Amino acid sequence: MTPVERSGVTRLDDLPIRDDLRGRSPYGAPQIDVPVLLNTNENPYPPSPGLVADLAEAVRRDASELNRYPDREVLALRADLAAYLGHGLAADRVWAANGSNEVLQQILQAFGGPGRSALGFEPSYSMHPIITTGTATRWISGAREDDFGIDPGKAIAAIEEHRPDIVFLTSPNNPTGTALPLGVIERVAEAAPGMVVVDEAYFEFARTGTPSALTLLAGNPRLIVTRTMSKAFAMAGTRLGYLAADPAVIEALLLVRLPYHLSTLTQAAARVAVAHRGELLGTVDRLRAERDACVGWLRERGLSVADSDANFVLFGRFPDRHAVWEALVERGVLIREVGPPEWLRVSIGTAEEMAAFRGAMSEALAVCEVITAPGGSGRDDLEGIL
Amino acid sequence: MTPVERSGVTRLDDLPIRDDLRGRSPYGAPQIDVPVLLNTNENPYPPSPGLVADLAEAVRRDASELNRYPDREVLALRADLAAYLGHGLAADRVWAANGSNEVLQQILQAFGGPGRSALGFEPSYSMHPIITTGTATRWISGAREDDFGIDPGKAIAAIEEHRPDIVFLTSPNNPTGTALPLGVIERVAEAAPGMVVVDEAYFEFARTGTPSALTLLAGNPRLIVTRTMSKAFAMAGTRLGYLAADPAVIEALLLVRLPYHLSTLTQAAARVAVAHRGELLGTVDRLRAERDACVGWLRERGLSVADSDANFVLFGRFPDRHAVWEALVERGVLIREVGPPEWLRVSIGTAEEMAAFRGAMSEALAVCEVITAPGGSGRDDLEGIL
Repeated sequence: MTPVERSGVTRLDDLPIRDDLRGRSPYGAPQIDVPVLLNTNENPYPPSPGLVADLAEAVRRDASELNRYPDREVLALRADLAAYLGHGLAADRVWAANGSNEVLQQILQAFGGPGRSALGFEPSYSMHPIITTGTATRWISGAREDDFGIDPGKAIAAIEEHRPDIVFLTSPNNPTGTALPLGVIERVAEAAPGMVVVDEAYFEFARTGTPSALTLLAGNPRLIVTRTMSKAFAMAGTRLGYLAADPAVIEALLLVRLPYHLSTLTQAAARVAVAHRGELLGTVDRLRAERDACVGWLRERGLSVADSDANFVLFGRFPDRHAVWEALVERGVLIREVGPPEWLRVSIGTAEEMAAFRGAMSEALAVCEVITAPGGSGRDDLEGIL
Repeated sequence: MTPVERSGVTRLDDLPIRDDLRGRSPYGAPQIDVPVLLNTNENPYPPSPGLVADLAEAVRRDASELNRYPDREVLALRADLAAYLGHGLAADRVWAANGSNEVLQQILQAFGGPGRSALGFEPSYSMHPIITTGTATRWISGAREDDFGIDPGKAIAAIEEHRPDIVFLTSPNNPTGTALPLGVIERVAEAAPGMVVVDEAYFEFARTGTPSALTLLAGNPRLIVTRTMSKAFAMAGTRLGYLAADPAVIEALLLVRLPYHLSTLTQAAARVAVAHRGELLGTVDRLRAERDACVGWLRERGLSVADSDANFVLFGRFPDRHAVWEALVERGVLIREVGPPEWLRVSIGTAEEMAAFRGAMSEALAVCEVITAPGGSGRDDLEGIL
């Protein structure tokens, strides 16, 4: 190291980081301390005292062997998750890691990499391109329609043009809430030359009757369906993502996973969560009702609102969305500036939190400009007011 | 997907995995169920009932917020780890992840990648080249001397020849147990054009007076020292690796870490472990005494034994090491076939486990061929016996 580096404060740019990282900022929603947090699509309902007691008991039981490495193959948890998913799945068709982010990274490490590419349809989960480029895979950005759906004809044309090694389909989509019809997934899977990843992080919130891509797994060895315990399962702090796929896909992931990647405590906690799934998923109905009420309330105010099958709602359009976001923060409500430039995303909280959101939003709408929805309820009186 | 893929069983080779993964087997020590496990360098002493109770209590306390994401920046734990390490470190110079494997992977993602290279001196920790190539970084294998040390002149020559972006120095080295003199690390750090990673996973086991590379951090912004809770801390099941480095290095890692990578439970458990460090590290003296006794016992039998500053011992040489490994397994003792072809590695267990190892080893030596150590105790009578 040269002497000049030995004196003074070292800045990030002084270090030999990868060229494509230069000038970047770390990913992450702003962490601001306000009373109502509706920014990261968490489930607002904490675990029950019974679940907490079982969790502490499981930790007490397993902690006496914490000097030993965890089960490297995560077999018991994978069997539990397979039983939860149903569709005839067993442990050999399920894999788990520290959040679906790590699941996705392992998929990219196995099937992507230098000289390979992944295609997604944006706006979508912003970690897809980040994890893709983070594994030196080329990111190809496909487009969604005005209603945030995917046109299968255009999707197939994009696949035929780019021949991506991996295609991402997010359903329900983040940050738009849009669920994909099964037919779109089927047609994309037939056209794709490589792997197809259906990110179903928010699936449990989908409206009744929405089919899961799990129903397409049989006979589709290049299809992967990812899930998470962070949302409907209300276990964001546990960091447990998982997937279902052909056993050969799991074999491929074993080649790239870091050994002993999932701790004894994570495995134990996730098993307790699966055992308590009735209670945890019991919050889903309440959140769906709040979501549908939120969509209706925003539409009544003349706003454009995306149909949502998730635990959040994307709404707009605002010529200056940051002003709306800020007006809400000032009133103690944190939502997320994400998605297309004129839109905002609100996570669905408890009834009390949503009432706070509506109150703050009413005040924000009185001071912020809105582009009213075409064919909306015609609250033109709001337009043009700053 | 073509129709032929829809019928029959899909094999791994049928999938479009990365070309460099084809034909590979998953990393990992064989998991065989025998009474005495001395194969993965775990600490044999389980957490005390007091520690287990504190752990369960911490989980009970934090579990009520498990529906929320964990602290993305891991600040409280990083402060605890900094205080443990000393050397004037604070939270801004410490980073933590799911095992030192993930710490190393993040370093490679930030400072390695396509078109970049990493140099290590082998035999060493086998995950270094695996994580290197897993991040599309080129691996350059440098050599160690016959005594498993590193010759600084040759190391500098290798650095000048290859100009690696990252240099790995493992001290104490796995699987040989060899600690590096500080002078070697200093000379390598001066010569290296990029980052230097000193993997000190086993540092706490080093013989008294062995200095840590932490003493070299001040003024060396390209130096990184990695540690783990899996060994001396007896927390392999918790999966907690960490590092100390310049704050700018931590900033670089924030660009590549998966958001919320470290769960609420892992952060809580690791904090409890740091609080109980007196008890956990109290096992280190016993393990060092067993190690030194093991080295002496093996040398008395005419074997070649590497000096060890770790919680394992590398010994040999055996024309057919697998026969020795198998003879031990048959007698209920699992050690590891790792390192140079004629050597074996035994992890240091409890006094009872080491007695079992010596008993099994005595029997194995009676039936397995040994290449006696030059200048050893001259047990030539063992040589040539199969």
